[in-house]
Amino acid sequence: MADKRFFKRAGPFSLGELARLSGARLLRPQEEGRLCHDVAPLELAEPEALSFLDKRKYLGAFARSRAGAVVVAPELAESAPPGMALLLHDAPYRAYALIAQAFYPEPPVAPRRAASASLDPSASVPEDCAVAEGAVIEREARIGHRSSLGANTVVGAGVEIGDDCRIGANVTLSHAILGARVVIHPGARIGQAGFGFAPDRSLPSKLPQLGRVIIGDDVEIGANTTIDRGAGGDTVIGSGSMIDNLVQIGHNVVLGRCCVLCGQVGISGSTILGDFVMIGGKGGLADHLSIGSGARIAANAGVMRDVPAGATVAGSPAFPIKEFMRQTALLQRLAGTKDAR
Amino acid sequence: MADKRFFKRAGPFSLGELARLSGARLLRPQEEGRLCHDVAPLELAEPEALSFLDKRKYLGAFARSRAGAVVVAPELAESAPPGMALLLHDAPYRAYALIAQAFYPEPPVAPRRAASASLDPSASVPEDCAVAEGAVIEREARIGHRSSLGANTVVGAGVEIGDDCRIGANVTLSHAILGARVVIHPGARIGQAGFGFAPDRSLPSKLPQLGRVIIGDDVEIGANTTIDRGAGGDTVIGSGSMIDNLVQIGHNVVLGRCCVLCGQVGISGSTILGDFVMIGGKGGLADHLSIGSGARIAANAGVMRDVPAGATVAGSPAFPIKEFMRQTALLQRLAGTKDAR
Amino acid sequence: MADKRFFKRAGPFSLGELARLSGARLLRPQEEGRLCHDVAPLELAEPEALSFLDKRKYLGAFARSRAGAVVVAPELAESAPPGMALLLHDAPYRAYALIAQAFYPEPPVAPRRAASASLDPSASVPEDCAVAEGAVIEREARIGHRSSLGANTVVGAGVEIGDDCRIGANVTLSHAILGARVVIHPGARIGQAGFGFAPDRSLPSKLPQLGRVIIGDDVEIGANTTIDRGAGGDTVIGSGSMIDNLVQIGHNVVLGRCCVLCGQVGISGSTILGDFVMIGGKGGLADHLSIGSGARIAANAGVMRDVPAGATVAGSPAFPIKEFMRQTALLQRLAGTKDAR
Repeated sequence: MADKRFFKRAGPFSLGELARLSGARLLRPQEEGRLCHDVAPLELAEPEALSFLDKRKYLGAFARSRAGAVVVAPELAESAPPGMALLLHDAPYRAYALIAQAFYPEPPVAPRRAASASLDPSASVPEDCAVAEGAVIEREARIGHRSSLGANTVVGAGVEIGDDCRIGANVTLSHAILGARVVIHPGARIGQAGFGFAPDRSLPSKLPQLGRVIIGDDVEIGANTTIDRGAGGDTVIGSGSMIDNLVQIGHNVVLGRCCVLCGQVGISGSTILGDFVMIGGKGGLADHLSIGSGARIAANAGVMRDVPAGATVAGSPAFPIKEFMRQTALLQRLAGTKDAR
Repeated sequence: MADKRFFKRAGPFSLGELARLSGARLLRPQEEGRLCHDVAPLELAEPEALSFLDKRKYLGAFARSRAGAVVVAPELAESAPPGMALLLHDAPYRAYALIAQAFYPEPPVAPRRAASASLDPSASVPEDCAVAEGAVIEREARIGHRSSLGANTVVGAGVEIGDDCRIGANVTLSHAILGARVVIHPGARIGQAGFGFAPDRSLPSKLPQLGRVIIGDDVEIGANTTIDRGAGGDTVIGSGSMIDNLVQIGHNVVLGRCCVLCGQVGISGSTILGDFVMIGGKGGLADHLSIGSGARIAANAGVMRDVPAGATVAGSPAFPIKEFMRQTALLQRLAGTKDAR
Repeated sequence: MADKRFFKRAGPFSLGELARLSGARLLRPQEEGRLCHDVAPLELAEPEALSFLDKRKYLGAFARSRAGAVVVAPELAESAPPGMALLLHDAPYRAYALIAQAFYPEPPVAPRRAASASLDPSASVPEDCAVAEGAVIEREARIGHRSSLGANTVVGAGVEIGDDCRIGANVTLSHAILGARVVIHPGARIGQAGFGFAPDRSLPSKLPQLGRVIIGDDVEIGANTTIDRGAGGDTVIGSGSMIDNLVQIGHNVVLGRCCVLCGQVGISGSTILGDFVMIGGKGGLADHLSIGSGARIAANAGVMRDVPAGATVAGSPAFPIKEFMRQTALLQRLAGTKDAR
């Protein structure tokens, strides 16, 4: 189970309750009164805990698991070991996430203002916010209700933060407008001037960066990720987008709704993404591109051209994934290495 | 126009003034008294604003723009919509940068010492500096005139910072000597020990890192970028160099004058760059290389060998750009994918 | 010699002492009483300093060096210039590291608690620790003996830090247990929630991240590196591992003993590394992989499959290094570029 020093567990819950809150269906309805005390991965789960199976490749771990209950897709249920209670759901990982949230709810924000925090008198910080030690809120900044600011975080002049946001420690925000329920992990840098200058043989002439960063609702931004403000016009992060650690987002980039950027992705200035775009780890995009909704960009890809909606690309320079795989296979074959693997 | 919460605009300026300060020439000198109130990109500019056109690919936006005045290269001027005032310049983006600086000048540093800042009594911090909340200046550090230190920034013992530097929030500096007019964005880490140790089957033996980071004048360093100090000898960043976010610079790297490193570039230890070297996003350089002046390294390149002055390389491992393009095209053709694109 | 503002030198030492402490052998034992005052690289060393030669490619610098003494492998000793004292060792770089540590020992931690630091009354912080300005230690955290915390560093609730750890400035730690002698450079982020959610057409469902980060003894973690805590189960960094700057380590990753991760490496969730794995700069690993002990992953590699113990892989997607080199050479030849280089 989760280390009590760090996590507080709720429950227990009956399997009936867990089925209801996750939208799952109990395979054996007569088990609905059985109590469940925790959640855990298949390999770690004890008999009092619930787990999940979302991929066929983990069927072995499923068969060996000591978990008392498991959320599973109906077609994989028959591989369960005897005695395991089964909750059936077409999206087991999502159902499991909802159940785990019930066991380990995010603790509510405990209103406080640390004595060592600095709040400019002109800033608006509701009483129900939590402002940790050393946090700095500059003039005219406005924080929403029930939002929390981590220790030594700096909120620049004029920044707006919506309700129920959770800003981690050592974060820097400037020139930014955040929606509600935004989560920002430690060390993220939002709103600094972008990389804009005219090269010159003597010294570069810097272009004043006059835009903002606009972040929608329910966005999550990873640790030490950097998002530059617009040069003219804004950098925009669409609602529901999930951004991992150490991601770089240049000025005037626009992300649609629910985009997913894995660790160390980089997006150059003025590139526009539609909704539900997914980019694997270390994927890089050149500037001024247009990436259609639902496009998928493989890990390590280097995208130099527009990507149509729904397409999947890979490689550097990036090609449609099938072409990339054909190229890779051909090169292996020609080099006589295919059989040697 | 720029959000008033974050930016303060100067002006208006007459087109004559703007032509003079940017070195541009008014196509129709009789328009020199016309007033201009702002700057904005072509698509966003209103009739009272000035914009610029620097690339042929934006001719469409130029033709559709409502901007009252545009800086443009002489050969593209004829595509202007009727009524638009034109300022002619061979480097329109540079001229525009100068004009934008006039409208949005960097506000002067307002001298202050936040009560929560910690200044070691042996540190030298002129009265005309701005030291924000929670900033820490350790023993014997010396700050130049009119420099500003952001909130919660830490300046280590003995560090020297030149005049008119702007150090952002949550920055860490140690073992470093900075020139004048250096700009450091939030979260940059300058001067920590580099990655130096002798591997061993029991435990690595660490090599004390005994050098410094020497930063010239007019350097800009991006958010969350890391620059390690030298191991023996120094890490050097030449004057006028522009370094984007999340860049890694290893110990004993030397950058010449006016180098440009885009986001997420990585340079391994002891690699030496000449002047005016440009590296695209995510470009990586092995250790102990020599990169000649004016060399250009494409985004995503993985450079394993020296690069001669003036050369352009791409790919991983990197080849001269023409070879890289020939290789890419050949592979496409052989895999039968060229026509399918 | 090292800048006195930043480094304090011990010594002088006789060559006899230096040979003993490094396990080297003096070529001419009669020189054992000769005094040595400093260490420096071959090109910078003055006659009173000791240097080292560890690679044949630096024989030229060796022959030209003014160093008074040099640690060198026995088979390269004959290239020495006349008058240079020679210490023979099979691992000259390691011997040099030990000698450099003698000249520049890490200063002991000077116990202190800065007035502006915030220590929760329930936290355990021995008197012999150094807690710098603005550091924040939250409830129930436990710091080991003689450990130091840099300015504006935040240690979250319940975190445990072992003895003799050195945590830099502006670091964030949460949900983590650290061993002894761990070094963390500025801006590292350890223990934040990993990138775990079930995608959905409306909004992603986040999976509570219920694990920890467990860090062994003698680990070094670079500036602005990010290590997420486990989702269920822990993220583990084995003892003696060296991690460079801007590295991303996802939830549930396990590193064995003495792994070496160069700058900007990224390891996706649940990938398991054995002992002594080395990953070059920018190397990326997909999730749920198994990398055997002693495996070597080249810079820029994109690893999509398991790597057996002792293997070396390169490329993206990564292949065994010989295959990768054969593919690269073939492509060059076919494109007719080989001779043109």
